[in-house]
Amino acid sequence: MSKVNTSTRPEARLAKGFRDIEAAELRGLNDMTGKIREVYERYGFEALETPAIEYTDALGKFLPDQDRPNAGVFSFQDEDEQWMSLRYDLTAPLARYVAQNFQFLPKPFRRYAFGNVYRNEKPGPGRFRQFMQFDADTVGAEGVAADAEMCMLAADTLEALGVKRGDYVIKVSSRKLLDGLLSAAGLDGEENAGRRLTVLRAVDKLDRLGIEGVSQLLGKGRKDESGDFTKGADLTPAQTMEVIGFLERPIASNTDNPAFKSGVEDLLKLKEICAAAGYDENRIRLDQTVVRGLEYYTGPVFEAELTFEVKDDDGRPVRFGSVGGGGRYDDLVARFTGEKVPATGFSIGVSRLQAALSLIGDKKAKALGPVVVLVMDKGEIATYQKMTQALRNAGVRAEMYLGSSGMKAQMKYADKRNSPCVIIQGSDERAKGEVTIKDLIEGAKAAAAIKDNKEWKEARPAQFSVSEANLIQEVHKLIKRHEA
Amino acid sequence: MSKVNTSTRPEARLAKGFRDIEAAELRGLNDMTGKIREVYERYGFEALETPAIEYTDALGKFLPDQDRPNAGVFSFQDEDEQWMSLRYDLTAPLARYVAQNFQFLPKPFRRYAFGNVYRNEKPGPGRFRQFMQFDADTVGAEGVAADAEMCMLAADTLEALGVKRGDYVIKVSSRKLLDGLLSAAGLDGEENAGRRLTVLRAVDKLDRLGIEGVSQLLGKGRKDESGDFTKGADLTPAQTMEVIGFLERPIASNTDNPAFKSGVEDLLKLKEICAAAGYDENRIRLDQTVVRGLEYYTGPVFEAELTFEVKDDDGRPVRFGSVGGGGRYDDLVARFTGEKVPATGFSIGVSRLQAALSLIGDKKAKALGPVVVLVMDKGEIATYQKMTQALRNAGVRAEMYLGSSGMKAQMKYADKRNSPCVIIQGSDERAKGEVTIKDLIEGAKAAAAIKDNKEWKEARPAQFSVSEANLIQEVHKLIKRHEA
Repeated sequence: MSKVNTSTRPEARLAKGFRDIEAAELRGLNDMTGKIREVYERYGFEALETPAIEYTDALGKFLPDQDRPNAGVFSFQDEDEQWMSLRYDLTAPLARYVAQNFQFLPKPFRRYAFGNVYRNEKPGPGRFRQFMQFDADTVGAEGVAADAEMCMLAADTLEALGVKRGDYVIKVSSRKLLDGLLSAAGLDGEENAGRRLTVLRAVDKLDRLGIEGVSQLLGKGRKDESGDFTKGADLTPAQTMEVIGFLERPIASNTDNPAFKSGVEDLLKLKEICAAAGYDENRIRLDQTVVRGLEYYTGPVFEAELTFEVKDDDGRPVRFGSVGGGGRYDDLVARFTGEKVPATGFSIGVSRLQAALSLIGDKKAKALGPVVVLVMDKGEIATYQKMTQALRNAGVRAEMYLGSSGMKAQMKYADKRNSPCVIIQGSDERAKGEVTIKDLIEGAKAAAAIKDNKEWKEARPAQFSVSEANLIQEVHKLIKRHEA
Repeated sequence: MSKVNTSTRPEARLAKGFRDIEAAELRGLNDMTGKIREVYERYGFEALETPAIEYTDALGKFLPDQDRPNAGVFSFQDEDEQWMSLRYDLTAPLARYVAQNFQFLPKPFRRYAFGNVYRNEKPGPGRFRQFMQFDADTVGAEGVAADAEMCMLAADTLEALGVKRGDYVIKVSSRKLLDGLLSAAGLDGEENAGRRLTVLRAVDKLDRLGIEGVSQLLGKGRKDESGDFTKGADLTPAQTMEVIGFLERPIASNTDNPAFKSGVEDLLKLKEICAAAGYDENRIRLDQTVVRGLEYYTGPVFEAELTFEVKDDDGRPVRFGSVGGGGRYDDLVARFTGEKVPATGFSIGVSRLQAALSLIGDKKAKALGPVVVLVMDKGEIATYQKMTQALRNAGVRAEMYLGSSGMKAQMKYADKRNSPCVIIQGSDERAKGEVTIKDLIEGAKAAAAIKDNKEWKEARPAQFSVSEANLIQEVHKLIKRHEA
């Protein structure tokens, strides 16, 4: 092969805002999604997988960042000029699926879905442009019982993943409350829809900005630390006070507005259903400060929060906060059909939750790597490979060393793979029908204890010869010992 | 909500060439990927997940259809004008990953990966623009032992998935053979690289077009049934005869060309290693007609083929042919680093293989749906939900009916979900502390046997009352009976 010209070589780099996920994290992820799936299935949901690519008009534009160019989604044109986009969540494709297949589906239609979603947003620390969601949705159920079930599902899922009772809370509010409040304050009608959304998104930032910051965003606007100015909802001081008052007082029907009253009724009913099934206020709690940023919610909204504090790598206390949420979105299918189809759903931010769980979980020992059969004699590769296949056929994770380096590099390779042992057969051993098993885990312990090189060589710790016939049996025993 | 204006409503439709995957297929898929993962792990490979999006220059253009606009990939520009693409396979991103992380990786680096890939190609029947691959690759191993291992991996994977010995074959050839042959015929050098590729792709169509069609593609070109003309490699008649002769004769070193000879040596060594480990010619077989369409292969190439015939839905015999393949690609990492890093890999076309397996597997009974707790009295929703949660807490897949329809629709819903039974508690039963369990599977059998409606009503088959305290126990028994 002619050497590649330097000037034309691309740089090996990840695209901005994307990441690789390696074996240890994937093991945890696989374990986690298995447990989530189990809970969702137990709740009666069925799996569905829609494609990553949809027509842009079928997805709609419901992202908080919709002012940015491209509206937060990755888009491109098909050969026939139609615009396509990568899905930014799993809910918009579900609405498309339900509208497309409505007549064939059981009603209500209950599905769960797991997969990557894509956001064309500015990446930041821990904020990627591809991430995983795990959703459950009930489509075609208008009663608040369906919302209550989502909250219980959220609680059960967190507990199945090892989050202790008391270490999480599912907070619930309703879009109807703020909508009703604003309507009562004279901000109803289509012409004020944009302003109401600005208010919702201001309130959604309460955790981060506090009452003062939210007040500014409800009024003229807010200048942040960097000096950037965000335009506010331009409420009058009286309207602003009304909203702030609502956020600070307990939930109660203190207005005649029908939307507000209906929102309060929903929440009380939801609370009653959860309480009857044994989910008290320590697990599922009404909290009117919950909003959720997506535009499409129309009723109850929920947020699953981890409440415990953990220490980060530098020993500083961290609270994870929200690891999932959802709510009722009664108009999403109607976008296609014109017919209202009431729906509600819950979505887990898988990567975020996994990061949180990795801090509370037992620090698991690194998983054992494969047994490595060393290549002592290149002419005998077929023999070593045969030995390797025999181990594999007996269920042992094993491989023959496939590089072209010598003994020392082979040992180093096995160490790097965290192998429990290596198998050695030189010509002497072959003549005797034997193999040597070198226990790398015992060996590492022994090496730590023995200081003298001569003593080491004489003791040859953690290394023993067995007849070829006993190889599999002995390796099985060794692995069992180290897994215990 | 104001009704959505008809004129602005999007049509609910899948993007062209994409598909939804529903519960039954996903269950099979999940089962299948679990088994593949087990084999790949046993071979010592570690999981890795790279993102779906890469910089276009990092992926390179190695697709067969590279003459088409967009070169077969979906591409778009980032905000900083850099071109990004959806991955079209899992190998090109692996090369990027290895080049980027080379110094930290064990060498050889052995990883498996599973995920969707995207092709911007013309869709057709059974040919989608998003599909799944499951790959294993060894990077940094130049010996043919690594290729031999890929072939054994392919065989073991198919057997783990239930394909019987004799119902599949792994065919092996080497790129060096045709390259050497063409070089000996005067077609070496960079200036003939495009022509050699045209020859490879012509030979790759042997299965479909036969010797006659391939001969045309080696020469001036070929007009297909639709009248479309495909330009050929423009070999002389003598060169064409040389290639055709090679395809028809057994593999032997009948030339002095060093590439050809080296290719034959590789294949004989590969065969020896496989044979020593117990994989005979019925499982892994040399076959010089195997080519593989991707440009980046440089040495041994393999194709996993199902050899049995099955009947399609209309009773016509179908042979599935290739369900996976791979080969050696020694130059892919060098694209980035300039240093040659020998590599080899095997890739399963998951959806294709699943389609094949579904035809030979036992037709499994449709999975049981959830137990449905009927809503007989809307004022008692909290009670029904409590019952549902109790069933779930006991590990029973259950749900309360969440729609707003009456008894008849609820029974129809449970039937559509394939529920084993429904739970009924009206006011009379509640007063007595009882619930009625209606066995839908027994009920369906009984209904088939009983013709008279009056007789049916009197017998009320497959329906019985139990005390509330015994509900869980009785449902457990019923499900166990139906799962057996």
